[in-house]
Amino acid sequence: MAPEIPTEQWAQVIEKTGGPVEYKKIPVQKPGPDEVLVNIKYSGVCHTDLHALQGDWPLPIKLPLVGGHEGAGIVVAKGDLATGVEIGDHAGVKWLNGSCLACEFCQKSDEPLCPKPLLSGYTVDGTFQQYCIAKAAHIAHLPKEVPLDAVAPVLCAGITVYKGLKESGAKPGQWVAIVGAGGGLGSLAQQYARAMGIRVIAIDSGDEKKKMCLEQQGAEHFVDFATSKDLVKDVQAATPDGLGPHAVLLVAVNEKPFQQAAEYIRPRGTVVCIGMPAGAFLKAPVFESVVKMITIKGSYVGNRQDSAEAIDFYARGLIKAPFKIVGLSELQMVYDKMKKGDIAGRYVLDMSK
Amino acid sequence: MAPEIPTEQWAQVIEKTGGPVEYKKIPVQKPGPDEVLVNIKYSGVCHTDLHALQGDWPLPIKLPLVGGHEGAGIVVAKGDLATGVEIGDHAGVKWLNGSCLACEFCQKSDEPLCPKPLLSGYTVDGTFQQYCIAKAAHIAHLPKEVPLDAVAPVLCAGITVYKGLKESGAKPGQWVAIVGAGGGLGSLAQQYARAMGIRVIAIDSGDEKKKMCLEQQGAEHFVDFATSKDLVKDVQAATPDGLGPHAVLLVAVNEKPFQQAAEYIRPRGTVVCIGMPAGAFLKAPVFESVVKMITIKGSYVGNRQDSAEAIDFYARGLIKAPFKIVGLSELQMVYDKMKKGDIAGRYVLDMSK
Amino acid sequence: MAPEIPTEQWAQVIEKTGGPVEYKKIPVQKPGPDEVLVNIKYSGVCHTDLHALQGDWPLPIKLPLVGGHEGAGIVVAKGDLATGVEIGDHAGVKWLNGSCLACEFCQKSDEPLCPKPLLSGYTVDGTFQQYCIAKAAHIAHLPKEVPLDAVAPVLCAGITVYKGLKESGAKPGQWVAIVGAGGGLGSLAQQYARAMGIRVIAIDSGDEKKKMCLEQQGAEHFVDFATSKDLVKDVQAATPDGLGPHAVLLVAVNEKPFQQAAEYIRPRGTVVCIGMPAGAFLKAPVFESVVKMITIKGSYVGNRQDSAEAIDFYARGLIKAPFKIVGLSELQMVYDKMKKGDIAGRYVLDMSK
Amino acid sequence: MAPEIPTEQWAQVIEKTGGPVEYKKIPVQKPGPDEVLVNIKYSGVCHTDLHALQGDWPLPIKLPLVGGHEGAGIVVAKGDLATGVEIGDHAGVKWLNGSCLACEFCQKSDEPLCPKPLLSGYTVDGTFQQYCIAKAAHIAHLPKEVPLDAVAPVLCAGITVYKGLKESGAKPGQWVAIVGAGGGLGSLAQQYARAMGIRVIAIDSGDEKKKMCLEQQGAEHFVDFATSKDLVKDVQAATPDGLGPHAVLLVAVNEKPFQQAAEYIRPRGTVVCIGMPAGAFLKAPVFESVVKMITIKGSYVGNRQDSAEAIDFYARGLIKAPFKIVGLSELQMVYDKMKKGDIAGRYVLDMSK
Repeated sequence: MAPEIPTEQWAQVIEKTGGPVEYKKIPVQKPGPDEVLVNIKYSGVCHTDLHALQGDWPLPIKLPLVGGHEGAGIVVAKGDLATGVEIGDHAGVKWLNGSCLACEFCQKSDEPLCPKPLLSGYTVDGTFQQYCIAKAAHIAHLPKEVPLDAVAPVLCAGITVYKGLKESGAKPGQWVAIVGAGGGLGSLAQQYARAMGIRVIAIDSGDEKKKMCLEQQGAEHFVDFATSKDLVKDVQAATPDGLGPHAVLLVAVNEKPFQQAAEYIRPRGTVVCIGMPAGAFLKAPVFESVVKMITIKGSYVGNRQDSAEAIDFYARGLIKAPFKIVGLSELQMVYDKMKKGDIAGRYVLDMSK
Repeated sequence: MAPEIPTEQWAQVIEKTGGPVEYKKIPVQKPGPDEVLVNIKYSGVCHTDLHALQGDWPLPIKLPLVGGHEGAGIVVAKGDLATGVEIGDHAGVKWLNGSCLACEFCQKSDEPLCPKPLLSGYTVDGTFQQYCIAKAAHIAHLPKEVPLDAVAPVLCAGITVYKGLKESGAKPGQWVAIVGAGGGLGSLAQQYARAMGIRVIAIDSGDEKKKMCLEQQGAEHFVDFATSKDLVKDVQAATPDGLGPHAVLLVAVNEKPFQQAAEYIRPRGTVVCIGMPAGAFLKAPVFESVVKMITIKGSYVGNRQDSAEAIDFYARGLIKAPFKIVGLSELQMVYDKMKKGDIAGRYVLDMSK
Repeated sequence: MAPEIPTEQWAQVIEKTGGPVEYKKIPVQKPGPDEVLVNIKYSGVCHTDLHALQGDWPLPIKLPLVGGHEGAGIVVAKGDLATGVEIGDHAGVKWLNGSCLACEFCQKSDEPLCPKPLLSGYTVDGTFQQYCIAKAAHIAHLPKEVPLDAVAPVLCAGITVYKGLKESGAKPGQWVAIVGAGGGLGSLAQQYARAMGIRVIAIDSGDEKKKMCLEQQGAEHFVDFATSKDLVKDVQAATPDGLGPHAVLLVAVNEKPFQQAAEYIRPRGTVVCIGMPAGAFLKAPVFESVVKMITIKGSYVGNRQDSAEAIDFYARGLIKAPFKIVGLSELQMVYDKMKKGDIAGRYVLDMSK
Repeated sequence: MAPEIPTEQWAQVIEKTGGPVEYKKIPVQKPGPDEVLVNIKYSGVCHTDLHALQGDWPLPIKLPLVGGHEGAGIVVAKGDLATGVEIGDHAGVKWLNGSCLACEFCQKSDEPLCPKPLLSGYTVDGTFQQYCIAKAAHIAHLPKEVPLDAVAPVLCAGITVYKGLKESGAKPGQWVAIVGAGGGLGSLAQQYARAMGIRVIAIDSGDEKKKMCLEQQGAEHFVDFATSKDLVKDVQAATPDGLGPHAVLLVAVNEKPFQQAAEYIRPRGTVVCIGMPAGAFLKAPVFESVVKMITIKGSYVGNRQDSAEAIDFYARGLIKAPFKIVGLSELQMVYDKMKKGDIAGRYVLDMSK
């Protein structure tokens, strides 16, 4: 029997750039032929949501806008062309709500590079509502035993770091340095690396983070960038042969680490940029980059297959992502804390409150 | 019957940094167990030789020094452990005179990254002499029908650009932009690209170079960086779908092109740095690099297999490298011209003069 | 202005397994939301069409059936969700009429492995009619300067051999042996290989085929399997170092060549099976396969990106596929000739006759 | 201070094909310029040693012969050209005692494919003696904390299965079926797979093996080939989506499993042959292999880098290889048990007894 779908629902709506966000009732949409309607149960709140609210990225947003792109829920309706999904399935709605599936990039499984993407909570309404539309071919399939609240942050942060590790080319038994290891992305990155058989050098600062990285998240070495007298030397010394890590994952939010990585990376190694500090530049000396044959590359979210894999690692219990639940109605408070930089861990919204 | 080997030979010797180079008789060396002695017939002169003379690179040189690393000749003696080579074989002596063959990098076929390399004409005596020592496992094997004068420049410049094209990941039918296409490396790069089925956008300046690139070296488009009003747009427009080339090969000698390349490259494309302008930096905006998922990497000479392949393309008549012959005794004149930037094409020394 | 679309059209219809095929008027269909309607101008006839007629493959066919899967024409209508295509575009309808675009294989760009494929002229009506339905995301985009008759055979045979060459891993400058080089697939395979910078050893029999391979299709060596006294030795001898080709492409229609290939292939080489002789088996000795580390693999048609690339090589004038035009009404005659094995070259149907 | 090296030593010598092997004193050799002398402390006994004794492989053996190729000991002397190794280092002597390091295969890091290999205990004297010669560039470097007895079996069996897993292309999170999981190779293969983040389906027979695979060696599923009513279906059912494992590792000693693997492998999957049952053939239906695009390949020992990696996994405590120690003097007894198929686990010889 088909689930009852209301005509109205609670949502958080941004009417104009800068906000505020307004908690109110809005109509429930009907899915198009290639779409599904997902009854969102929980949604994570990501820093990107704050950028959407503030409109401070070069990319224009839809207005009025329902934000959010880490939503987990249950499929309650689907269009005639929606294949591979059934009413009642558990599903995640991700940043990439849909793509054309026909351009060169979609054809090559690089959907995140599609020039005509639909972005949840940015160019189309997202997951800060109880019923969200998503392209059927793009939803994340969630096993029913996975708790919908806990998996929410995996749908953006988890996929992104997992993809970055894949792009790094690091193989089981090799070393990756994770810069910004103590943050939300960094913590997930460490755990994914371990689950993939990759060894971790955590780079961050402070004893609390050190303890967490070494004792809980699987790092074998911690280098404190604030107290290290020679960061390049210390990172290299953390590998048994002193040649440095095979890969570096940059999830930090400032520019400097992007430039040191090229120095301590092992010859033939790969530096992957994931974090996007505003206005930052990659910079590396040409001479050393050439004679060491290093690679520097960017990695952006993940495609559908990456997403399925990242969720599978999570579903197997290999990844822990700490989070705090508040009601959907409290979203403004979360934004306020974010603005102040006052958040430890991830907030997840309960759509029923 | 073994060839007669004299005890003395003509050579050009650098006694002290800065030169001058001295044309004189020196003893002929005997090969060690894993070495060969090559009777050099011709040697190209490369810009690196000038750096060795001037001692203006961070890497210290042997002194006194016989320079040169593009030598082609005939094997006249070999040690007991020299396998895969016979007296009478034609052979090339390259920049990488030898490597340890036992470190991680040598084990992975990345001999150019060996931390203990022997560099011809830099850390060991090179090819500006009539009889040159080289590690047997590292010599380039030359088919006997290949002229020893013409192949000399291929032994450094040819191998380097061929390797760069391999590292770029460009596939037959895809596009590569070659920055500095009109120079010596660029001209070879265009021809190798064509032979590999890769399509070429030549970037350089001046009508003479334009004509040469389009009519002789196989480029399908030429973008003049000096007259272009919007280089990024013009390069992208040269590809049928306007998305830009799949790869960029940087053989230029100044810094600016290293930074534009990240802008016109196709999403998921690869920028390969080969040229090493002194003190230059790779620089690319983090945001665009991430969302376009571009790769920037350095490529340094080539390993032994790359060398064999690059020579094979040449031997098949697919590559033309224009050169001018002068006697070994005239080396100082070549250096002088180089210093003044006064060289068009490559000089090759005839060892018998 | 939209093109006029008739309500009825000429088609060739199979009413029951075994045929005959009936030339008659049938209704023109309307495209669904994610589909296009293509006014087919020309369609190639492939051996697979005969299998569909005879129903002698394990896979059940739709009945009644309009066959054909090498159709080239003009898009005259499209659904609301059909992206990346406009009315008036030239388009090809291929074997893979559509796939789910959502399963693991579609997500990984392996659409031909989709477990729910729509197969033109097999599980859905194909190109032996004047107006054919196809999934928008799957049509081949044809540049307008490409003649619609000549390109038709490329849409199946061309794509298949091009994909096989990609799967072989053969690099520019390496050698591929093409078994069955003188046939339709083999002839295309030779030309694609050349365009990709790969060197060809043609294996087939007879002086006519030898001449054609060596003089027109780009092979550098021809080995006649009918007259060779030691095929393995002869194929290996065709490579300069005697170690054999880096890859083998099997487009033959009998079983024996599948077993010899493992013997003459170079260590670490790859044997790619494309042809599918009924009931044939791959067979290779385990001991030799292990100590030579050879790879044997199957390659099946091509994905959408492969198709675009294969067409691009054709559009650039690098591939010639000889064909003969007859009217759509004459299809039964083509089937009859096929049954007798009496076809040299490819038949292309003109839909207006 | 250099270690004292005796002039005579205990060894086990095969004087003629078929044996018996003779325990006696023979002279200690001196290493050549590119060689080391290793004071063997322990040596594993491998099935290949029995083949050498019996001379029942197509490849001729040296006579008289000292067998053995899993030797672990201490470097006591080295030639002038032996780089990267010092007197006192712990080292392993492997099947590949040396290779030319100059041919195409050595240049491409495929030393096991060198056409002029030196094979320990087969074409050169091996590790069933107290002092063994090995090419310096080919010895395995052993960290000093690794016990020399326990690591011996890793030097052949461990490297071989680790390489096979690498060749399979299986990625962390994917599934590999290991056929013959309960044997010596299979047990190691399961543990390496787990350490690499790969999930394991063990295929073998009997409850004892089932228990061992599931409880000790990291398999998540066990399929009993003796009791399974439909092996293909059971193996596929062991993967969550029922499509079968991404890779299959064949370490079994009979032929049948080589043919079933092609049936249950996932489309695009890879079947890797490691075991070499005498006279066995790979066999797979062409039609299914093509439309599923499967890959079948052979994997043979491992190169030097593979060896270093396999040892590193072992040194980290991730791999347990059970073994039993007996004196060198008891080798004949081990051969006798092998002939009768009467060995559970691996025998390691103590050279001092």
